[in-house]
Amino acid sequence: MVCEILSIGTELLMGQIANTDAQYISRHLAELGIMVYRQTTVGDNPARVKEALSTAVSRSDLVITTGGLGPTEDDLTKEVVAEHFGLPMELDQKSLDALQARMAAYGQPNMTSNNLKQAYFPKGAIIMENLRGTAPGCIVEQGGKAVAVLPGPPREMQDMFMRQLAPYLSGKTGIEIVSRYLRVFGVGESKAETILLDLFHSDNPTLALYCGAGEVQARLSARVERKEDAKRLLDPLEKEIRARLGSAVYGEDEDDTLAKAVMRDLIRAKKTVATAESCTAGMLASRLVDMPGASQSFQQGFITYANEAKKRLLGVSEEILSSFGAVSEPCAIAMAEGAARSCGADYALSITGIAGPGGGTEEKPVGTVYVGLYTKKGTTAQRFHILGDRSWIREISCQNALNMLRLALLEEK
Amino acid sequence: MVCEILSIGTELLMGQIANTDAQYISRHLAELGIMVYRQTTVGDNPARVKEALSTAVSRSDLVITTGGLGPTEDDLTKEVVAEHFGLPMELDQKSLDALQARMAAYGQPNMTSNNLKQAYFPKGAIIMENLRGTAPGCIVEQGGKAVAVLPGPPREMQDMFMRQLAPYLSGKTGIEIVSRYLRVFGVGESKAETILLDLFHSDNPTLALYCGAGEVQARLSARVERKEDAKRLLDPLEKEIRARLGSAVYGEDEDDTLAKAVMRDLIRAKKTVATAESCTAGMLASRLVDMPGASQSFQQGFITYANEAKKRLLGVSEEILSSFGAVSEPCAIAMAEGAARSCGADYALSITGIAGPGGGTEEKPVGTVYVGLYTKKGTTAQRFHILGDRSWIREISCQNALNMLRLALLEEK
Repeated sequence: MVCEILSIGTELLMGQIANTDAQYISRHLAELGIMVYRQTTVGDNPARVKEALSTAVSRSDLVITTGGLGPTEDDLTKEVVAEHFGLPMELDQKSLDALQARMAAYGQPNMTSNNLKQAYFPKGAIIMENLRGTAPGCIVEQGGKAVAVLPGPPREMQDMFMRQLAPYLSGKTGIEIVSRYLRVFGVGESKAETILLDLFHSDNPTLALYCGAGEVQARLSARVERKEDAKRLLDPLEKEIRARLGSAVYGEDEDDTLAKAVMRDLIRAKKTVATAESCTAGMLASRLVDMPGASQSFQQGFITYANEAKKRLLGVSEEILSSFGAVSEPCAIAMAEGAARSCGADYALSITGIAGPGGGTEEKPVGTVYVGLYTKKGTTAQRFHILGDRSWIREISCQNALNMLRLALLEEK
Repeated sequence: MVCEILSIGTELLMGQIANTDAQYISRHLAELGIMVYRQTTVGDNPARVKEALSTAVSRSDLVITTGGLGPTEDDLTKEVVAEHFGLPMELDQKSLDALQARMAAYGQPNMTSNNLKQAYFPKGAIIMENLRGTAPGCIVEQGGKAVAVLPGPPREMQDMFMRQLAPYLSGKTGIEIVSRYLRVFGVGESKAETILLDLFHSDNPTLALYCGAGEVQARLSARVERKEDAKRLLDPLEKEIRARLGSAVYGEDEDDTLAKAVMRDLIRAKKTVATAESCTAGMLASRLVDMPGASQSFQQGFITYANEAKKRLLGVSEEILSSFGAVSEPCAIAMAEGAARSCGADYALSITGIAGPGGGTEEKPVGTVYVGLYTKKGTTAQRFHILGDRSWIREISCQNALNMLRLALLEEK
């Protein structure tokens, strides 16, 4: 099945927004095994929308439009589709009822004729409800071709695509895609690629890697006729990946983060953590608290940016600072121990480093970071050398600190 | 002048990346007074690229392509443009020299014939250097039409567009756009719009508002024939906006942030600040330290997530906590004073609030946040009620705290 995406909206042509709709749709069509050959964007101009639609329908089996479903005069996608296929516009009572209910909830019970327009569709169209806005979408089929009309706002479009258009298309192609995610830290993208190399050759299930802030996400996708069949394909692949990457795999959710995984582990183990940060200045603690319920495991943290503060608040000795400097293993260890001591935490993390752009030396260049980890068994510190700008160095310092704690929690399980 | 953008790249059709290039180009063309009527995306397929190019050239004065300039077999944009206009490909010695120098710097002195391809262009083309990559772009003119060929990677494309293509287009249209930015905090977008309403009617200079995390950015743009003329148009508009928005205007740089502005003011005034955070848990301090040189004004901060920590580290009394609770004006004041006392800072900011999703009450619903500000003249606290999810509430709490300090610094100037 060959598909073409037609995006309608002058705001796209003016560059006021990026066309993330086209990306979203393309990515999900690829998973459904549907090829997208062209993406076209035109403004809210009847002649150009009509011409673009005719061209698209003439060369593709499926055309998906976004935008032009609002209540204004400019919004004309459904009308152009109806005209193209020679269909009259008809009122859909169910859509009208839904529209009236939604307008009333917004405190606008009196509909204008413009609002009413959103309940009209080309005759015979399959109507797709809009659960996140006032403009329903629709699918018009004729002569082996189909045009699917979606709203432009991404939240509305994505919901409608996933709930209604994707199942329709799965029905046509006979294919469903079921995906799983594995989140990985401590193994870079190219190293992960090497370790998993032969697994990329599989056509079904497929494996793809995506790269975030020092993290890698693996997507495992199975193309199946029935959802129930996916497990049989995905389980062995997941098992194999976990066997090869070991403890580097830390999460399964698409939107999991290292900080959330660590906080989850802490809460589960009923353990507490304290922090002492220099160059990251609170970024680490702030990440830990991203997760609701963090108060069960996190009580306090110190930001000791100046040496004076390291001494006064954490008890780092003058001797350590003068002999080794603030960016050193002994200082990271003393910071972690000071933080733990202050509130009797089970664990404490410390970060001290040179985030730049100034302050680097030959021996300790910009990007040199020590992370300290206090546990009841003892305190250790690791040296990292992080390449990048100030904000990247601080970001990756936090990620490494979180990972050290994660591995320690894993060991004690 | 009518323009069309042709994006070339299978990764776009697969939805692996969003087409931010088309947005960037469209936005800047709009500023130059050039209309974009269509954006088209095709994959790395010679037949479809050729057909899309012919169609685009037939209906537009200017076609701008992105992508397909790399060293691989798939990269064929220049070749298709040459073929369309009936031009041979010719080696450009200057591009070859630059390419050789770059490859040598990458430690790859031996070029393959694929690399060499990047130094060939349609005969007679105006060549655009690539200062951020190996693939130069070019402009081909014929019969009153022009095709500009840009690389796909955004960093390379944007640099080439701004330095080379925009001046070329300004030369054609006789128009230059000069923009200034004003960053505004403490006045919402719709309120700013109301205050500035009549100023939006001006055609030249124009005024546009953009919205960020609780911030508004105003862009003032003058369309002029010579850059020198812009000042005469922009100065009175800027003066008028500043008069109306007063101290809500905090910065002039496009990428300025409230945190940077505050840190700049602190360093300039040779003043120090300390922090005490509960629900934001280090986010505020981390923001202050985003700016290099922050150590001149920031020495330490406290993260007191638990009540116990507020008492022990900041000296918040049991009486305050039991009578008013941790999320209260007296607690915010005591936190700020405790933070200032600890290191003798000139200023201290405190944040205590309910970020949710749990923890809200009828009296203090989720989003209730108190920000305390200690100055040498006394300590005050403000209550905010922030609507949004956990991360938004924490984010806007920090912005409000920064703004309170900014206004205090402004008063003492």
